[in-house]
Amino acid sequence: MCRSSIERGPATPVDVGILGATGVVGQRLASLLDHHPWFRLVWVGASDRSAGQRYGSLSWRAPGDAPACVRDRVVSSCDPSGAPRVVFSALDAAAAESLEPTFAAAGHVVISNARSWRMDRLTPLVVPEINPHHLDLLADQRRARGWDGAIVTNPNCSTVFLAMTLHALSAFGVERVVVSTQQALSGAGHPGVASLDATANVIPFIPGEEPKIETETAKILGTLEPGGIRPHPTRISATATRVPVLEGHVEVVSVELAASPALEDVEAAFARFRGECPPGLPSAPERPIELALNDDRPQPRLDCERGRGMTVVVGRLRPCPALGYKFVALGHNLIRGAAGAALLNAELMLARGLLPVAPR
Amino acid sequence: MCRSSIERGPATPVDVGILGATGVVGQRLASLLDHHPWFRLVWVGASDRSAGQRYGSLSWRAPGDAPACVRDRVVSSCDPSGAPRVVFSALDAAAAESLEPTFAAAGHVVISNARSWRMDRLTPLVVPEINPHHLDLLADQRRARGWDGAIVTNPNCSTVFLAMTLHALSAFGVERVVVSTQQALSGAGHPGVASLDATANVIPFIPGEEPKIETETAKILGTLEPGGIRPHPTRISATATRVPVLEGHVEVVSVELAASPALEDVEAAFARFRGECPPGLPSAPERPIELALNDDRPQPRLDCERGRGMTVVVGRLRPCPALGYKFVALGHNLIRGAAGAALLNAELMLARGLLPVAPR
Amino acid sequence: MCRSSIERGPATPVDVGILGATGVVGQRLASLLDHHPWFRLVWVGASDRSAGQRYGSLSWRAPGDAPACVRDRVVSSCDPSGAPRVVFSALDAAAAESLEPTFAAAGHVVISNARSWRMDRLTPLVVPEINPHHLDLLADQRRARGWDGAIVTNPNCSTVFLAMTLHALSAFGVERVVVSTQQALSGAGHPGVASLDATANVIPFIPGEEPKIETETAKILGTLEPGGIRPHPTRISATATRVPVLEGHVEVVSVELAASPALEDVEAAFARFRGECPPGLPSAPERPIELALNDDRPQPRLDCERGRGMTVVVGRLRPCPALGYKFVALGHNLIRGAAGAALLNAELMLARGLLPVAPR
Amino acid sequence: MCRSSIERGPATPVDVGILGATGVVGQRLASLLDHHPWFRLVWVGASDRSAGQRYGSLSWRAPGDAPACVRDRVVSSCDPSGAPRVVFSALDAAAAESLEPTFAAAGHVVISNARSWRMDRLTPLVVPEINPHHLDLLADQRRARGWDGAIVTNPNCSTVFLAMTLHALSAFGVERVVVSTQQALSGAGHPGVASLDATANVIPFIPGEEPKIETETAKILGTLEPGGIRPHPTRISATATRVPVLEGHVEVVSVELAASPALEDVEAAFARFRGECPPGLPSAPERPIELALNDDRPQPRLDCERGRGMTVVVGRLRPCPALGYKFVALGHNLIRGAAGAALLNAELMLARGLLPVAPR
Repeated sequence: MCRSSIERGPATPVDVGILGATGVVGQRLASLLDHHPWFRLVWVGASDRSAGQRYGSLSWRAPGDAPACVRDRVVSSCDPSGAPRVVFSALDAAAAESLEPTFAAAGHVVISNARSWRMDRLTPLVVPEINPHHLDLLADQRRARGWDGAIVTNPNCSTVFLAMTLHALSAFGVERVVVSTQQALSGAGHPGVASLDATANVIPFIPGEEPKIETETAKILGTLEPGGIRPHPTRISATATRVPVLEGHVEVVSVELAASPALEDVEAAFARFRGECPPGLPSAPERPIELALNDDRPQPRLDCERGRGMTVVVGRLRPCPALGYKFVALGHNLIRGAAGAALLNAELMLARGLLPVAPR
Repeated sequence: MCRSSIERGPATPVDVGILGATGVVGQRLASLLDHHPWFRLVWVGASDRSAGQRYGSLSWRAPGDAPACVRDRVVSSCDPSGAPRVVFSALDAAAAESLEPTFAAAGHVVISNARSWRMDRLTPLVVPEINPHHLDLLADQRRARGWDGAIVTNPNCSTVFLAMTLHALSAFGVERVVVSTQQALSGAGHPGVASLDATANVIPFIPGEEPKIETETAKILGTLEPGGIRPHPTRISATATRVPVLEGHVEVVSVELAASPALEDVEAAFARFRGECPPGLPSAPERPIELALNDDRPQPRLDCERGRGMTVVVGRLRPCPALGYKFVALGHNLIRGAAGAALLNAELMLARGLLPVAPR
Repeated sequence: MCRSSIERGPATPVDVGILGATGVVGQRLASLLDHHPWFRLVWVGASDRSAGQRYGSLSWRAPGDAPACVRDRVVSSCDPSGAPRVVFSALDAAAAESLEPTFAAAGHVVISNARSWRMDRLTPLVVPEINPHHLDLLADQRRARGWDGAIVTNPNCSTVFLAMTLHALSAFGVERVVVSTQQALSGAGHPGVASLDATANVIPFIPGEEPKIETETAKILGTLEPGGIRPHPTRISATATRVPVLEGHVEVVSVELAASPALEDVEAAFARFRGECPPGLPSAPERPIELALNDDRPQPRLDCERGRGMTVVVGRLRPCPALGYKFVALGHNLIRGAAGAALLNAELMLARGLLPVAPR
Repeated sequence: MCRSSIERGPATPVDVGILGATGVVGQRLASLLDHHPWFRLVWVGASDRSAGQRYGSLSWRAPGDAPACVRDRVVSSCDPSGAPRVVFSALDAAAAESLEPTFAAAGHVVISNARSWRMDRLTPLVVPEINPHHLDLLADQRRARGWDGAIVTNPNCSTVFLAMTLHALSAFGVERVVVSTQQALSGAGHPGVASLDATANVIPFIPGEEPKIETETAKILGTLEPGGIRPHPTRISATATRVPVLEGHVEVVSVELAASPALEDVEAAFARFRGECPPGLPSAPERPIELALNDDRPQPRLDCERGRGMTVVVGRLRPCPALGYKFVALGHNLIRGAAGAALLNAELMLARGLLPVAPR
């Protein structure tokens, strides 16, 4: 498929489904797929509690109504038979661990937001602006596991935003990173955090989050080698807290850089960053990273929807007396950090001919 | 004055006043002084807007009513004549800059929470558990400025909590610190942050806060030398954000320690910390630092009132892949970080014979 | 038992237990019973999930720690054997429905905050300031059911505050009431409302709440007749909404009064209200109803702890163009509206010799 | 002008300006006017503090950036010379009182959201779905005041939502109304309510709001007579409270209806309501009133953007034991309740040939 064909997308939209379509991320995926130029949402799967019901009759947790494309579909149980060849997974980790391989073995390409297979040796963990070439791991995955399908994952929400900013600085040699996140409530799904705990409070612990940020980032920034990814040796230290915000994770980041760039050079690296993503993907933001113009930005409420929720906003770049430079990053946890991340991965795969569809 | 006399306090309560008595910190000071065993609040000063009015008739921003001891006092203008010899200052910085020296020159001891004189070469910046001996600077201050009175300051709220934890670790040699604060709305006073900005949001900038944390901490931990304080050489990097919490600042801290202590030793250093504060001060908490027992603590709403708001709670102590160790600290910004800090300084000074009162 | 003996309480504290001791109301009961002059908390019962564990090891959802009196007790399962003769019930309705009669049949006096038996024909629904004489129904209850023990209930949180204000106006003849409540999150217990639903939002429905307010109020204000209570004929209309507040329910009330009192008379009725509660009960507030002094009060955050959480604060009294008069009432939903309500009922019963204890 | 010409709008967009363009409502007006089919925003006026600055350089308080159409305009002072013939006013009341007549006298049509002239005898107070014919008052206004221009007003935010629902029920004869509002913070503008007051709290008073709701509603529903409007005799009682919500006012309403319609008839009256608005106005929602489908709706966060913020959502319709029927209404305070209300009035006036522009 030549580049121009990539940019125009498939001749006819590709049928896709969503595993775990009734959760917060599944609903957001359904919204993003409504009127999508390349994909057509034709199947929604969920737990047996919801299966058999009309999708539009289930509790919709975002403004407006369930998208028209899927409102009247009956929810299926999470069984490969009847599901389209391309499925997004917004399953929780326990379900994803066994169901995603089942779908892959049955010939489905699973584009997953679940954490279960992210750190698997043979599973690509991809952010299109950073490591699209890690998709080459799929050949190994299929061979080793005898799958006709595949599993491709995107990282944890907080990881995406951090990894993007570190990749933008990669020319300077990122040696050490201290990141402190302030994460929105929607990151915990629904019902998630009890309002009695969250209101006017900070909860300084999110189970499992910090190891995810530390290890997933190293894998994404890592080197593709025969049989796996060698993690990037950057020393990353994360603390993850929950704050009473609805959408948008804030990350306070200090970095030590091997080169000793001037502040203007670091700023330019963010401002000019375009990443490794091939052009023409519908969900790719014009600018993956944007610099905030005022000192008091980025703010989750005002800035997390930039680039239709796919842009990471960086602000407050300044010297760090302890490590070198420090800044604040913000990303939309449900879009760039979850549903949009999976969708962009699917677009990347389609553009690279990695989805089971006829090219135009 | 012998120790036992210290512990019993003054023979009769010492008359004190509050400059800036109508703000959030001034009101909290009035509450803490109600029924205080050593002090008697007899005078409240505020701007001309409030002067002449009954203190209890002004808007009281905390639960309950204005304290009985002061409810019926008429607010004075901020003029030394008529004010008691010992005054607390909860003035804003602009007013404090000129008014505090005026009071000191007129023979008053000003125990100030304002930032104006904290970094002044001849002004002690004191946390009783850390550097009570810095009060010795007062002799220089009085001599150089020809004051009968004096100015003593306590640090910025976030600084207190950080400095306490670093002092607890001082035996290990604190070399580098990265701290990210999540600060409560009450720290901005009233009206402070607009609700339209604060609700369900994070504001990643607090004007002037980060330099305060970095420089004040170094001064408090510094060495008293003839004519001033040599700042501690620790490299401290702070990022301060505002979160929609009412009271209690959270601090996410990573530290590099010269010694390479085991985790248990760091934990023990926090658990055993008692500090340099002489015994018997009424506002001193039994334990200046307390370790939280659960992973999801300390939380502002649940923990900031420990030790009557004077205890710093430390949790989540664990290795930091980037610097050495990391933890989360929490303190009550209005008590340990402001009104209680000033009050404890006053108690320390009384115990050391530094207030213009007759000992028992 | 003569009055003076009532006022002094029992010769030795009465042993009591709590059914459902681990929920939000159960924990609050434990706090209120700590250092209680008349009762001694010696037993805590909860579901099998918690039974066998140390009470202090379970998640404590309020500031500070579990009260000393009960911290080291092992949680029992909810079985009458081993439980003291007097038990408070903070069970959820499903459990209360069957467990409370089991305890009553086994000779225990159950003082319940659960809704299950409130509207039962033979069960008193009591607010000591309003209808202490409804306790006389207990004789019928015991006779009809063959119980040695008993069940006594307090109303739903919102009902208490409304019923108190209506009783204060009863001399004017309350004919119609329109009440709109804005209820705190803690009223839903833990985990209760999801933070994703509650944050920066209003939920205009609380299942079951409105009928409770309408029917329970009529019963409390009703007339004791042989064999039951004849409900008060006031026409009450309630709408209950949930707002992102932690503690304290606001009620916006319009009333039509048969007499056409002057505004001053209505105000005086609130200001002078003392109610029917016998003197000397430890949890009774000095003033069951207090008038707020400013137009922008009562506010949940500033006013719900008045009278140690047992006082209902009334503000904004003014003419209602539609019905007659209108005002805003506020009460602490966990204290006056739940745990404190039950405790005050227990104190009333002890004072009236209705608890199985030896008088002094 | 024939109907079809109305529906197609003007031949070329009409130049308009905004008085008070930098406040919360002024900014929202600018957003709504971006890409508007009938109007072109060419002028922004504000106080001298902002005059002379680039509009896009001023603090923008909504997600995204200031709209492209106006970003680079220089803010004018509020002087008629240089302003277009049609100006929206989002001025505060003090400024509007004198400035709006100045503009009207200078030949400008002022379409105002300010409260200053709403209750003026000769000024129409218009909601296009309810009383478009009240615009006929303009002839009297111009004659009596000798203006070439005019002032037309839209009501207070809460009033719009209430008046719409009452008008939908007008066939039944609305006799009495009790309404309790729960209003969003954005209704107070910026900085508006202090976060320290608003967070996790309810403020039961909004100065001036209740009389506005009561009197403006009666005027809108009133009868146009020679020389003025005879207010509708409905007895309306309002209580207005502030809740920690960002956008969307909730109204709890009880109504007494002269006819005694069945519940289905009341429901149908809401469902079928289309109002008196001529067809084809670009900002008019397809359905001015929509019925919520679930008991726990409408919720501000999920429902206030319905109909692009121009639809009032009604839910929980059910009998009211005190008055007849009760329901919950919700509207977007900044759109249907302010900026969108003014814009719809302008569209109505254009369609009726009341703006100083050449018809197509």
